[in-house]
Amino acid sequence: MGSFRGHAIPGTFFIVMGMWWSTKNFLKYACRKHKRASYVGSKALFQRIEISEGIIIILMALTGMLGEQFTTGGPRFTLYDYKESRWTQLTSWHHWTMYFFFGLLGTTNILCYTVSSLPASLTKLMLSNALFVEAFIFYNHTHGREMLDIFVHQLLFLVILLAAVVAFMQLFVRTHIVTLDLLLSSLVLFQGTWFWQVGFVLYPPRGGPAWNQMEHENIMFLSICFCWHYAVSLVITGVDYIFVTWLVKTRLKRIFPSEVGLLKHVDRDQESEEEM
Amino acid sequence: MGSFRGHAIPGTFFIVMGMWWSTKNFLKYACRKHKRASYVGSKALFQRIEISEGIIIILMALTGMLGEQFTTGGPRFTLYDYKESRWTQLTSWHHWTMYFFFGLLGTTNILCYTVSSLPASLTKLMLSNALFVEAFIFYNHTHGREMLDIFVHQLLFLVILLAAVVAFMQLFVRTHIVTLDLLLSSLVLFQGTWFWQVGFVLYPPRGGPAWNQMEHENIMFLSICFCWHYAVSLVITGVDYIFVTWLVKTRLKRIFPSEVGLLKHVDRDQESEEEM
Amino acid sequence: MGSFRGHAIPGTFFIVMGMWWSTKNFLKYACRKHKRASYVGSKALFQRIEISEGIIIILMALTGMLGEQFTTGGPRFTLYDYKESRWTQLTSWHHWTMYFFFGLLGTTNILCYTVSSLPASLTKLMLSNALFVEAFIFYNHTHGREMLDIFVHQLLFLVILLAAVVAFMQLFVRTHIVTLDLLLSSLVLFQGTWFWQVGFVLYPPRGGPAWNQMEHENIMFLSICFCWHYAVSLVITGVDYIFVTWLVKTRLKRIFPSEVGLLKHVDRDQESEEEM
Amino acid sequence: MGSFRGHAIPGTFFIVMGMWWSTKNFLKYACRKHKRASYVGSKALFQRIEISEGIIIILMALTGMLGEQFTTGGPRFTLYDYKESRWTQLTSWHHWTMYFFFGLLGTTNILCYTVSSLPASLTKLMLSNALFVEAFIFYNHTHGREMLDIFVHQLLFLVILLAAVVAFMQLFVRTHIVTLDLLLSSLVLFQGTWFWQVGFVLYPPRGGPAWNQMEHENIMFLSICFCWHYAVSLVITGVDYIFVTWLVKTRLKRIFPSEVGLLKHVDRDQESEEEM
Repeated sequence: MGSFRGHAIPGTFFIVMGMWWSTKNFLKYACRKHKRASYVGSKALFQRIEISEGIIIILMALTGMLGEQFTTGGPRFTLYDYKESRWTQLTSWHHWTMYFFFGLLGTTNILCYTVSSLPASLTKLMLSNALFVEAFIFYNHTHGREMLDIFVHQLLFLVILLAAVVAFMQLFVRTHIVTLDLLLSSLVLFQGTWFWQVGFVLYPPRGGPAWNQMEHENIMFLSICFCWHYAVSLVITGVDYIFVTWLVKTRLKRIFPSEVGLLKHVDRDQESEEEM
Repeated sequence: MGSFRGHAIPGTFFIVMGMWWSTKNFLKYACRKHKRASYVGSKALFQRIEISEGIIIILMALTGMLGEQFTTGGPRFTLYDYKESRWTQLTSWHHWTMYFFFGLLGTTNILCYTVSSLPASLTKLMLSNALFVEAFIFYNHTHGREMLDIFVHQLLFLVILLAAVVAFMQLFVRTHIVTLDLLLSSLVLFQGTWFWQVGFVLYPPRGGPAWNQMEHENIMFLSICFCWHYAVSLVITGVDYIFVTWLVKTRLKRIFPSEVGLLKHVDRDQESEEEM
Repeated sequence: MGSFRGHAIPGTFFIVMGMWWSTKNFLKYACRKHKRASYVGSKALFQRIEISEGIIIILMALTGMLGEQFTTGGPRFTLYDYKESRWTQLTSWHHWTMYFFFGLLGTTNILCYTVSSLPASLTKLMLSNALFVEAFIFYNHTHGREMLDIFVHQLLFLVILLAAVVAFMQLFVRTHIVTLDLLLSSLVLFQGTWFWQVGFVLYPPRGGPAWNQMEHENIMFLSICFCWHYAVSLVITGVDYIFVTWLVKTRLKRIFPSEVGLLKHVDRDQESEEEM
Repeated sequence: MGSFRGHAIPGTFFIVMGMWWSTKNFLKYACRKHKRASYVGSKALFQRIEISEGIIIILMALTGMLGEQFTTGGPRFTLYDYKESRWTQLTSWHHWTMYFFFGLLGTTNILCYTVSSLPASLTKLMLSNALFVEAFIFYNHTHGREMLDIFVHQLLFLVILLAAVVAFMQLFVRTHIVTLDLLLSSLVLFQGTWFWQVGFVLYPPRGGPAWNQMEHENIMFLSICFCWHYAVSLVITGVDYIFVTWLVKTRLKRIFPSEVGLLKHVDRDQESEEEM
């Protein structure tokens, strides 16, 4: 990971997941609001989507795990070098552990939607766990580095911790589910764009000179840059929400113009009870 | 912002918003309690009030954003001075970012009450976001300053963070709404008066000598002064609550003396269900 | 407060309040469970008790406030000594501010039970506020003191903060009210006994030599001593709960042996609705 | 405790408790779901199980308390050595205090299920208390030790604090009870395995050389090792859950094949009301 590519890959991973989760949840929410007879099959559909999601997460995590082990300079699954009496490539093992927990998340995702006795909330718990572990590892990741390096990783730690806390809260909060989903998606998206920013700061891709690590002004700039990333993530997620809601509404209205209004309230109550 | 006026302006902004929010919420609450036929139009009225509030917040934020950029010594929208290879006026950009997030709050306020598919709780989320971002920026704002300067900004950070947490809690808590509103309003008011206090401490307006930055006694005094500001904010908000409740009660009783008692309980139940 | 007596007086105050609150709440809870026709007047009775409690808290706070100002070496309401250009007796003003917030709590207590438009939850909010302010002041209280002195005040800060958080939680939590009351009472009692301990450590009353401020072993001992104080508080509150419940049960059973069982369940439901 | 055995014993204690609590709670949950006429006696059965659990916890705590006092070098209930004017064996007293709070937990467990007026939630409160006290003591336990020693104890502090917070949350959260139980059990199990790890790191049992206390690489390794322990605990608890659910389902289905499906939904509703 000590390269521009090593930050761009997980960054892209989180941007994709953030966009995907927001779209999926908003779609689910909008469908539920305007539920129709033709959408009776939607439960089975969403179940199949969840399982595919699990498989994709596992594939992404496997790619990351193998990449960390077998790229040039990777530890190739040796943990301790007995000849030189030292640990081999612990930072790679750190990243490997993070990917592993996301792999667990994917596995739980699949298990929860195939084994009926498992509660669906387990997925949320595992997402929150994966984020907490990621936050914990980033917190212990920067021993003995330079000031700017530590600062950008602390900000990364902050956004991951917030995402983990929001994911954990989703287990218990029953009101304003869509607002919390919007918040979580924007935080995951934010994390992805910040990974890119960290790559640009620490390993300038065009080969230009690295940023001055000890300059206070750089820290002052990055702290507002962090806020701008968040603003952009929020706006993107918000626009996504408005777009998805508008799409579902107009497409449904066009196909079945008369019944939507009538069925709306009855179905919503029914669905919200199902959810409990 | 590095002047007395630069602290007095946001201070006044928060004092006005604190007083306004408390009055609006107490009015809403009291009207709901003593709801009458003639108040059927109140929902539309409150909607119009919310939109006006959004416009006022946007105007305030725009004033702040332009003021930070174009007053003497402002960065005039240049972020990096390539000639001298340094960032231009980052503290101004910090303040600009804070105002920007309050601008987002105003925009959300308008959108939520015009676009019907947006949940009203989004406003609360954006208020909490704006306050969290403000707290984050103040936390990273005082690198390399003197002890007293850091201390008064830490206290500012504390009150903003508490306000942000209370605003975030309002998303989820359904009980004692009025108590939480009272707490949030008093914290916003408190923040405003503390901005004035910071102005007086760091840039004495009458041109007297500045406070000794390294004196421990000054810190000891400011920590109790902080508590007194809070006591005053609490008492003002409390008196405001009693006054608004009394006003609605007496004015309604004078106009429609007989029906208030009868309709009270029925309407309250109806309203509280609507709110859910 | 810089004396043994100065710690013993607030300590006694909190011990009395802790015992009183636990007894009152357990009594209320037990009466509600075994409610009887003869207890119809209990609502008015509890209201009168609350008002008396408010008056007693105000008297205690006034005693403390006047004591801090007028005992030998007190500031006598002068804040700044212009002759010597220094603040007068800021530690006394610190304590004065703490007592002042408890005075506000007493005032709110009276107002909430006399002015009908005020929500009863305001008392809980003010209790939480008074404890938060106390915690904040103790946090800023020990600039430039010795290690052991700072440590015992940090522990005091910890217990006050926990009590404040529990009091704040009581605003929102509707389940297991009695368990939370038990926890809050034991924390207040704990705070009182710890005040006495601090007095014994810093100002040994028998005139013996003070504790060695720099000895690590003393800190190690005080950290377990702190836990023992908590264990004692918990056990006392628990025994109090069992005793009050047993008392109400047996006394009621002796007087009206037949009806208790019949009315129990009906009344409980009714009461719990009232409480909402 | 300053030995390998001194860490292996409490480690084993927590591993046993973690496995036991998870199995008990999953069994309770599964029985409730597939409740049958023949299981009417299960309430009395679970009560007897709880009381036995309390007795076992008390016995474990007593063993620990006596072991700390009377093994070679123990304080034998003398707190202060007046001859040498110093505290005797404070670390032993620290451990003694932790065991004492778990003893209180056992006592509360028994009391809650024998004295009917005590609320059952008291057990949860005492569990949370015992864990908070343990966390507090470990936080104050490592004054003046080496870097690696402090680090492994900080991680221990982290996992205990998380377990305490989850136990405290269980008092208030009514949704996803089984997910929270799974989380708490896995954290207790995690704490147990980490105790063993600490023993291996600080007191290598095979007499090999101790780990280098000042090596940064060791800290980097232990922080991921910590995550692996957590992953293992999670997987074990998850497998336990699936196994118990499967066992109850198949055994019940084999004995009463027809009625399970019919009674399932009715009983679940009934039970969940009982639980409230």
